[in-house]
Amino acid sequence: MSIATLQDLLADFADRRDWGRFHTPKNLAMALAGEAGELAAEFQWLDPEQSARVMDDPAKAEAVRLEMADVLSYLLRLADVLDVDLEAAVREKTAVNEARFPAGR
Amino acid sequence: MSIATLQDLLADFADRRDWGRFHTPKNLAMALAGEAGELAAEFQWLDPEQSARVMDDPAKAEAVRLEMADVLSYLLRLADVLDVDLEAAVREKTAVNEARFPAGR
Amino acid sequence: MSIATLQDLLADFADRRDWGRFHTPKNLAMALAGEAGELAAEFQWLDPEQSARVMDDPAKAEAVRLEMADVLSYLLRLADVLDVDLEAAVREKTAVNEARFPAGR
Amino acid sequence: MSIATLQDLLADFADRRDWGRFHTPKNLAMALAGEAGELAAEFQWLDPEQSARVMDDPAKAEAVRLEMADVLSYLLRLADVLDVDLEAAVREKTAVNEARFPAGR
Repeated sequence: MSIATLQDLLADFADRRDWGRFHTPKNLAMALAGEAGELAAEFQWLDPEQSARVMDDPAKAEAVRLEMADVLSYLLRLADVLDVDLEAAVREKTAVNEARFPAGR
Repeated sequence: MSIATLQDLLADFADRRDWGRFHTPKNLAMALAGEAGELAAEFQWLDPEQSARVMDDPAKAEAVRLEMADVLSYLLRLADVLDVDLEAAVREKTAVNEARFPAGR
Repeated sequence: MSIATLQDLLADFADRRDWGRFHTPKNLAMALAGEAGELAAEFQWLDPEQSARVMDDPAKAEAVRLEMADVLSYLLRLADVLDVDLEAAVREKTAVNEARFPAGR
Repeated sequence: MSIATLQDLLADFADRRDWGRFHTPKNLAMALAGEAGELAAEFQWLDPEQSARVMDDPAKAEAVRLEMADVLSYLLRLADVLDVDLEAAVREKTAVNEARFPAGR
């Protein structure tokens, strides 16, 4: 599924609830920061090895998956209201990073 | 482009730089929170109306786009190392939200 | 009460629970970001006027107070383990800001 | 120096710049999340041992100190505009945690 399709699905979900007035760019950026903080909290006391095995515990795995879904959902809503092409933005940033961090051989 | 394709592109980018040892789930979740914080900072002093016009200023628009690209990139890397299907996770969370917030008519 | 006294109180609280091994600077910075995200989430859908009246609702007020306490607690723990004098740091940063943003008259 | 004194110093700094209109609770909570994200970013690629030695590098140490000052400054501004007694809030949260996490012997 393309990013655009997922974005449309979420835009439709918000529209049917009349959430447009809440979904200002500022509010969405704030909601995204909140969800990213909650996702980080899932990992805060884990050492690197424990963090690599975080999905072994089904309850924890589900919590992580749903926090990740929340982060992506707000990011896609923000892209929608700002008319940002996320795929193009990632490609552009990757090109910048190609120059900053040349791959070794 | 599908989410999976973008994810593979970023995984390849990291592999060619031998960044796997840095890209533990914990580190990626932390980097994601950092980028989400930077994205939020772009909006912190704006009132709702100003935030809706944030893309009118080309320099600000580019900053916002690249911060959004960073957020998505770390989220996709995290999905990759945790083997999370982000599209399925968003669909699952949307189903949960359908029940919690029934659409009016 | 001084910042130092509060810091000692929290250090003692952590010591008596043998939490020193969890309270690495990295973990504390991550926990701080998580709590800051949760605090932000209390305000995410409020417009500026609603945010100014957030303490009128006792339940919301208590949630905000406790999130603020969590943010301060992790910041004070981080200052303790890094041996940072927070008061001196704020004074130094304020001096920098005096120069960057001269007060009008 | 007491928290209240530092809070007054920052309130005065903001007043002399007429920043009151920007310092809504929502904006301050968002700025706090942004600074917490930047502070987290200082630690994102460090392993636990490296994070414990972060202050050995003078440039990094100064960056961390100033990020911590920013976090505290926005938290104190937020406490000021919401009329929250941070010390009392930390004591209250600590009492809650005493009950949740009884110290061993």
